Amino acid sequence: MSTSATPNPLRIAFVLFEGLDAQDAVGPYEVLRWLPGAEVSFVASVPGPKRGERGGLCLLAEHDLDAVARPDVVVVPGGSGELAARGDQKLIAWLRAAHETSAWTVSVCTGALLLGAAGLLQGQRATTHWTAMAELPKFGATPVSARYVFDGKLVTSAGVSAGIDMALALAARIAGPEIAQAIQLGIEYDPQPPFDAGSPKRCPPELAKMVYAASRFAGA
Amino acid sequence: MSTSATPNPLRIAFVLFEGLDAQDAVGPYEVLRWLPGAEVSFVASVPGPKRGERGGLCLLAEHDLDAVARPDVVVVPGGSGELAARGDQKLIAWLRAAHETSAWTVSVCTGALLLGAAGLLQGQRATTHWTAMAELPKFGATPVSARYVFDGKLVTSAGVSAGIDMALALAARIAGPEIAQAIQLGIEYDPQPPFDAGSPKRCPPELAKMVYAASRFAGA
Repeated sequence: MSTSATPNPLRIAFVLFEGLDAQDAVGPYEVLRWLPGAEVSFVASVPGPKRGERGGLCLLAEHDLDAVARPDVVVVPGGSGELAARGDQKLIAWLRAAHETSAWTVSVCTGALLLGAAGLLQGQRATTHWTAMAELPKFGATPVSARYVFDGKLVTSAGVSAGIDMALALAARIAGPEIAQAIQLGIEYDPQPPFDAGSPKRCPPELAKMVYAASRFAGA
Repeated sequence: MSTSATPNPLRIAFVLFEGLDAQDAVGPYEVLRWLPGAEVSFVASVPGPKRGERGGLCLLAEHDLDAVARPDVVVVPGGSGELAARGDQKLIAWLRAAHETSAWTVSVCTGALLLGAAGLLQGQRATTHWTAMAELPKFGATPVSARYVFDGKLVTSAGVSAGIDMALALAARIAGPEIAQAIQLGIEYDPQPPFDAGSPKRCPPELAKMVYAASRFAGA
């Protein structure tokens, strides 16, 4: 996608569902909403408040899926609720249709598995939350251990917080690096985690084992 | 605060208001909700959906302020709506009262200015979004250019995304570093921003000028 081809307005649809992970949606939202011409919608199969996983924060889906028929950018978050969402045939059909005309189809965390359930990962390189990487081949995808993966117009991100990094990279593809950098400065994204424990590759092995064992993919 | 003094349940109240910045609340939420015994509430002067700044995402405030009278942790996000929120006397009175008994009173981004309006920054070291640093002395605070500042039980964070770093540091103070690291691994917080533009100290000076000029604090 060249910058010159950027649609204006740029219609960005965030797909919400019960049991989503709020950060998966809000991280990219906080970046992409600043793009020139951005028109952001929060859509769901059934509009209304969508409760986050484990009885968490509700994000409001203001629009039915059909109200945003041909978004330029589709963003699909993850969270434990994505498993049930895979069985929502209206949502799955919408994802397939939206992907046909989107400029970018994007997932964060286990949102990749929802794209997989819609058949959109077949033959693609993709990533997801580190505990869920073994799920990707079940959808015909080649797992890539990376912060985010661009493969054609399909963009997948690692777990939760990776959506911020991915969205900045996507912002640069859509509107150029200067705008992406202005957004990064606006959200003061100068990360300084107090620990270096965010990757299973570098944290103590027993910590990775413990977190994996507590995940819904343990023994899957 | 020693770990042994950690209350259980640990009542964490997120203060929502019209025009908040969603990431300011969701970043710390995504970390603190995993703390042992965490009971998270989203509270507002008037419960209901609270629309994010610039007509953005609505987060649902399910409880009236009075429903959570003595939270252990109070989290105050920022966003352009904080200016109007400073005039909400019910909210200001609640913040003052909550701070009297809280274990931690926390802000993200320009949420610090709301704490300031409640008189809670007087004589404190504090930080906020980089464009708003000059506001802090107006509330009797000493501005500190840092990702986050712990001063007694008052914790303030830099702009938007800094709330994630602050919350991990706070999680370590509340529950110990092992739990904080497990949370960090769970949210796969291994940041890899595609640009090094998140701090006004290191980005191109013209970029910082442009972003500052577009902020609501320009010329204030």
